Amino acid sequence: MNYFAPLLAQDLAAIDLSTELSQNLLTTNNVWMMLSTALVFIMHLGFAGVEAGFGQAKNTVNILFKNTVTPIIGILSYAAVGFYLMYPGFEVPGWFAFDAGGWSMFWFAPETADVTADYASAGYTYWTDFLFQAMFAATAATIVSGAIAERVKLGAYLIFTLFFVGLVYPIIGSWKWGGGALNEMGFYDFAGSTLVHSVGGWGALAGVILVGPRIGKYVNGKTIEKPGASVPLAVIGVFLLWLGWFGFNGGSVLSADPGLVSFVLVTTSLAACAGGMGGFLAAYFAFKRLDLGMVLNGILAGLVSITAGADVINPGTAVLVGFVGGILVVISAVLLDKVRLDDVVGAVSVHLTCGVWGTLAVGIFSTNPDHSFFTQLIGVAICGATAFASAFAIFFVLKKTVGIRVSEEHERTGLDSHEHGIRGYTIVFDE
Amino acid sequence: MNYFAPLLAQDLAAIDLSTELSQNLLTTNNVWMMLSTALVFIMHLGFAGVEAGFGQAKNTVNILFKNTVTPIIGILSYAAVGFYLMYPGFEVPGWFAFDAGGWSMFWFAPETADVTADYASAGYTYWTDFLFQAMFAATAATIVSGAIAERVKLGAYLIFTLFFVGLVYPIIGSWKWGGGALNEMGFYDFAGSTLVHSVGGWGALAGVILVGPRIGKYVNGKTIEKPGASVPLAVIGVFLLWLGWFGFNGGSVLSADPGLVSFVLVTTSLAACAGGMGGFLAAYFAFKRLDLGMVLNGILAGLVSITAGADVINPGTAVLVGFVGGILVVISAVLLDKVRLDDVVGAVSVHLTCGVWGTLAVGIFSTNPDHSFFTQLIGVAICGATAFASAFAIFFVLKKTVGIRVSEEHERTGLDSHEHGIRGYTIVFDE
Amino acid sequence: MNYFAPLLAQDLAAIDLSTELSQNLLTTNNVWMMLSTALVFIMHLGFAGVEAGFGQAKNTVNILFKNTVTPIIGILSYAAVGFYLMYPGFEVPGWFAFDAGGWSMFWFAPETADVTADYASAGYTYWTDFLFQAMFAATAATIVSGAIAERVKLGAYLIFTLFFVGLVYPIIGSWKWGGGALNEMGFYDFAGSTLVHSVGGWGALAGVILVGPRIGKYVNGKTIEKPGASVPLAVIGVFLLWLGWFGFNGGSVLSADPGLVSFVLVTTSLAACAGGMGGFLAAYFAFKRLDLGMVLNGILAGLVSITAGADVINPGTAVLVGFVGGILVVISAVLLDKVRLDDVVGAVSVHLTCGVWGTLAVGIFSTNPDHSFFTQLIGVAICGATAFASAFAIFFVLKKTVGIRVSEEHERTGLDSHEHGIRGYTIVFDE
Repeated sequence: MNYFAPLLAQDLAAIDLSTELSQNLLTTNNVWMMLSTALVFIMHLGFAGVEAGFGQAKNTVNILFKNTVTPIIGILSYAAVGFYLMYPGFEVPGWFAFDAGGWSMFWFAPETADVTADYASAGYTYWTDFLFQAMFAATAATIVSGAIAERVKLGAYLIFTLFFVGLVYPIIGSWKWGGGALNEMGFYDFAGSTLVHSVGGWGALAGVILVGPRIGKYVNGKTIEKPGASVPLAVIGVFLLWLGWFGFNGGSVLSADPGLVSFVLVTTSLAACAGGMGGFLAAYFAFKRLDLGMVLNGILAGLVSITAGADVINPGTAVLVGFVGGILVVISAVLLDKVRLDDVVGAVSVHLTCGVWGTLAVGIFSTNPDHSFFTQLIGVAICGATAFASAFAIFFVLKKTVGIRVSEEHERTGLDSHEHGIRGYTIVFDE
Repeated sequence: MNYFAPLLAQDLAAIDLSTELSQNLLTTNNVWMMLSTALVFIMHLGFAGVEAGFGQAKNTVNILFKNTVTPIIGILSYAAVGFYLMYPGFEVPGWFAFDAGGWSMFWFAPETADVTADYASAGYTYWTDFLFQAMFAATAATIVSGAIAERVKLGAYLIFTLFFVGLVYPIIGSWKWGGGALNEMGFYDFAGSTLVHSVGGWGALAGVILVGPRIGKYVNGKTIEKPGASVPLAVIGVFLLWLGWFGFNGGSVLSADPGLVSFVLVTTSLAACAGGMGGFLAAYFAFKRLDLGMVLNGILAGLVSITAGADVINPGTAVLVGFVGGILVVISAVLLDKVRLDDVVGAVSVHLTCGVWGTLAVGIFSTNPDHSFFTQLIGVAICGATAFASAFAIFFVLKKTVGIRVSEEHERTGLDSHEHGIRGYTIVFDE
Repeated sequence: MNYFAPLLAQDLAAIDLSTELSQNLLTTNNVWMMLSTALVFIMHLGFAGVEAGFGQAKNTVNILFKNTVTPIIGILSYAAVGFYLMYPGFEVPGWFAFDAGGWSMFWFAPETADVTADYASAGYTYWTDFLFQAMFAATAATIVSGAIAERVKLGAYLIFTLFFVGLVYPIIGSWKWGGGALNEMGFYDFAGSTLVHSVGGWGALAGVILVGPRIGKYVNGKTIEKPGASVPLAVIGVFLLWLGWFGFNGGSVLSADPGLVSFVLVTTSLAACAGGMGGFLAAYFAFKRLDLGMVLNGILAGLVSITAGADVINPGTAVLVGFVGGILVVISAVLLDKVRLDDVVGAVSVHLTCGVWGTLAVGIFSTNPDHSFFTQLIGVAICGATAFASAFAIFFVLKKTVGIRVSEEHERTGLDSHEHGIRGYTIVFDE
C-alpha cells in the first residue's frame, strides 16, 4: 500500500496550477503592455495635431507629411537596427553592443511560441517588448520635427530620422534601459525624461541652431508671432498626448502591477494638471493674457517633468514637480526667443528643459534613497552631450550635402503648394 | 512517521495559490479600471470638441481654454477636497462627512504598497479609485461650461468649477456612491444619470438663467441660429464621448466582471444608437430636415439615459430607453428656446432632461425588483434641488461680485481677440 | 482512521482553484476583447475623418451625417438580424441558417449570468461576442459610403446599409467565421481582408458603377482633382483607423493569448508602415510629388493587406505584403480613374484591391502548410461574386425606385445647404 501516490498527484496538480497562474499573469501583463503600446502609438497623432495646429496653414500638409512618415520610418528602422542596439545583453562596461541573435530571431522566427517562451519571465512577450519600445523610439524624432517645422527640407529631415531613431536613440537608451553603463552607475530615468524627451530635445536644439529661424520671425530685435492654423487641432494634439502618457508612463512599469501602475498614473495626472496651471499662471503674470498655448505646453511640461520619477515621487511632490515644469516652459520659451532660436511648437522648452528638470527632480525628491542628484546630473550630461553632438553632426553633414533648408520662395509662399501640390484646407463653398 | 507533513505542505500550497489567484484577479480588474479611467479622461476632449464645434469661430479659443482648464482644476480640487467628501466612510444618517485619514494618506503616503493592500479587497487599488472618480468629477463642471459658453466670464466660470467639483458634486455623490442617505433609502444610479449628468445639467440650468441669452439669440420672439464653427469638430467630440462611455459605464462596474461589464457595454451601445435614431427621426418630423446636430445630441441623450440603469435594463428595453431619450432631447431643446433659455450646445437637454429620464427609467424597467419609481423620484428631487440651489447660489454670488458676463463689445467681436489675443483658425494662404 | 479524508479535501481545493483560474483567464480575455471592441468602434470616427477630410467642404455635413448614422443603423440591424445569421451553428453544407434561439436569448435574456455561462468556454462572453462583431459589421457599409460620397442620395444609402449590414455581410461572414462552407473547404481569412474589406470594397465598386462619377470629375479625358476640405481631418482619420486596427486584428485572436496577440500586432504594425512607404514611393515615382494622400491610403492598404494573415505571416514577409499593398493602391487608383470610376476616398483601391491581395498572400506566404493559394482564390471569388451581385442588386432596385443620385443643382452647390441647412465650417470672424 502506497500512501504517497495521491500526495504526488496533488503535488503535480499544485505545480500545474502554479504554472497556469503565471501564464494568466503573463496574459494580464501583456494586455496592459499592448494597450500601453496602442496609447503610445496615438501620441504620434498627438504630435501631428500640436505641430499642424501651431504651424501656419500654408505649411500644414508638409507638417502632416513629416508627422505621418516619422512613425513609419521610426518603427521600420527600429525593427531593422535599433531594437538590437538598445537591448543587446551587455557585458561590462556596457557602452555599445548588438544583439545579432535577436535580429535573426525577429526576422526569421520559425514559430511564435518559441520566442514567447523565452520572454515569459519578463512579464510580457518578445513581440510586445519590441512594439512598445518601437513606439517610444519614434517619438524622439517627432520632437525634433516640431521645432524645425516650416523651413526644413523634408528629405533631409527623413534622413535625420533614420539615423536618429535607428542609431542615436537606441545606443543612448541602451546605457540605462539596456542595462549598460549608466544603469550600473545608479542613474534613474523611469520612463524617459532624459532618454526620450531630452534626447529628442537636444536633437531639436541642434536642428534649430543649424536650420536657423523662419524668415520674418525676428525683425529689428522683435519677435513676431506667426499665428497657428488651428487652435482646436493643437488642443486635440495635447489631449491625445496626455492620453498617450497613460501608456508611456503606465506601460513603463513593464507589467500590470496594480499598485505601481495606478500610482504612476496618479502622479502623472497630477503633474500634468499642475504643469498646465503653472503655464497658465506664469504666462498670465508675464504677458497679462490668458495664453492657451502656454496652458497646453504647460500640460506637456508637467508630463515630461514627472516622467523620470513617476514611480518614486509622491503625489504632493508630483504637483510641485509638474508646476515648476509649467513655469520653466514659459521662461525657456522667452529665453530661446531672446537668443533668436526659433522653435515652432516649443519643443526644446517642453522636452529638453523639462526633461532635464524632471531627471534632476528624481535626485532631489525620490522616495528611493539610492537616487542621488549628482548621479542624475552625470546621466543628464552624458546623454545630453551625446544626443546634441550626434544630432548636430547629422544635420551638419546634411547641410553640407543635400541641404536642410527650403528656398526662400518656397518658405514664403508655403511648402504645401510647392512640395505637395495641395493645400491643407480648402474651405470654399461657392463653386 | 508523520503522514500529515506532506498534507500540510499541500494545504499551504493551496493557500498560496489562492492568494496569488486573488492577486491576479486584482491585477486584471485594475487594468480594466485604469483603462476605463483613460477612456473617461478622453471625454474631456470630447466635450471640448462638441463645444468648440457648435460654438462660433470668434469664441473658439475661449471655449477651448475653458475646456482645457476644467479637467485641470477639476482633478486638482478633487484631489484636494472632493475625494474625501465623496467616500468618507459614513455613519448614519450619512449626509456629510470628511475622510481626514484618507486625505493625509493621499498626500503623504509613505509607501505605495500599504495603501494598495488596504484596497485589495475592493477589486482595484486606492490610486485607481481616486483617479477614476476624479475624471468623473471633472465632467460635471464641463457640462455647465457648454451651456453658458460664448458670454460667460472665464474667471467666474473657473471659480464656479472649483466649488462645484470640489464641494457640490462630491457631497451629492456621497449620498449614494459614498454609502450615504440615498443609498440607504434604496435609490439606484449605476453610473450617474443623476449624480453626474443631471447634477451637471442643473448647474447648467442655473448658469443659463443667471448669465442670460447671447446677444441676438432671441429677436422679436424668434430664435436665431448661430452657426457653429466646425461640424467635424462636433462629430469628433461626440464620437470621443461615446468612446469614453465605454469606460464611464463599463468602469462603473468597479471590476472587470466579464458578464456584467460586457452586458453594460451592450445596453450602453444599443441605447446610444437608439438615441441617435430618436434624435434623427424627431428632428425630421419636427423640422423636415436631416439635422446632424440632433443626431449627435440624440446619441449623447441615449448614453445619458441608459447610464443610471445600464446593468439592470435588458437589451430590448435599453433600445426603448435610448430612443425616448433621443426624442426628449429634441423636445427639450425646443421648449428651452421657447422660454428663452440659451444653451449653446444643448447641455441642459442632454444631461438634465435625459439624466432625469434615465434615472426614472430604472424605477420603471429595472430587472431588480428592489428598485422603485418612487424612490428614484425622491433621489432625483433631492439631488436636483441641491445641485440647482448650490449652483444658483455660487453663480449669484459671483454675479454680484466679480461679474459673470463679458462686456457687450467683447461678446459681439468675439472673446478670443480680447481675452486671449489669438484666433481659433488662421487659414489664410497668401502672405 | 481515514488517511484519505485530507487528500480528498485537497482534491476539492485543487478543483476549486482550477475553476477560479479559468474564470480569471476568462476575465482577462474579456477585458482584451472589450477594449478591442472599443478600438474597432473608434474606426467609425476614423472613416468619418478620412471621408470628410478628402471630400469637398460643401458636402462635409452630408458626409458626416452618413458616417454618424452608419454605425447606428449597422449596430441596430446587426442586433436585429445579422448576428444570428452570422453565427447560426451550421449543419452541413453550411450556406444559410438563422439562430432563432440566440435571437430570443439576446432580446429577452432573463439573466446576464446564464447567457455568460454558456459562453465561458469561448474565452469571452456572449455580449462581448455580439458587440465586437457588431462593430465589425458596421465597417463594411462605411467602406461603401466613402466611395460614393458627394452625389449619393442619403436615404438610398441608408436603406442600402440596412440590407448590406443586416443580410449580405453576415451571410457571407457565416461561410467562414460562422463555421460554414468556406471554413470546411479550408479557406483562411484571419480578420477579414475578404470577409470585411473586400466585401465592403465590392459593395463600393457596385455603388460607384451605378451612381456614376461626380459632375466635372472627368472632362475631355482628363481627371480633375477635387481638393478635399481638410487634410488634417483625413490624417486624424487614418491614424484612428490604424489605432482601431490594434483591436480589429488583435481582437480577432478572440482571446488575449499573449504570444499570438502580440505577434499579430507586430505584423500589423510593420505592414502598415511598409504600406505607407509603398504608397509614398509609388506616388513619388508615378507623380513626382510627395503625395500625402497616397501615404495615407498606403498605410490603410498595408493594414488591409495583412488582415487576412496577420497571425500566419512572419514579420519579414509582413513588410513585403504591406509594401506591395501600398504600391497596388496607387496603381489601382490610377486604373480606376482611367475607366472613369470615381471613388472619392479610394475605398475600392484600399479595401477591394488590397483585400484580395491580402487574402491571396495567405495562400503564398502562410507559415501554415494547410493554407493553399487555390483555396484562397476560390474563397475570394465566391465572396466577391456574392457581395458584388448583392450590392449591385440593392443599388439597382433603389435606382429604379427612390433614386440613388441627388439633383445636378444640389450636387453643384453642395449637399449641405440643401439637405441639412447648415455648413460644415463657419470660420468668419467679423460680424
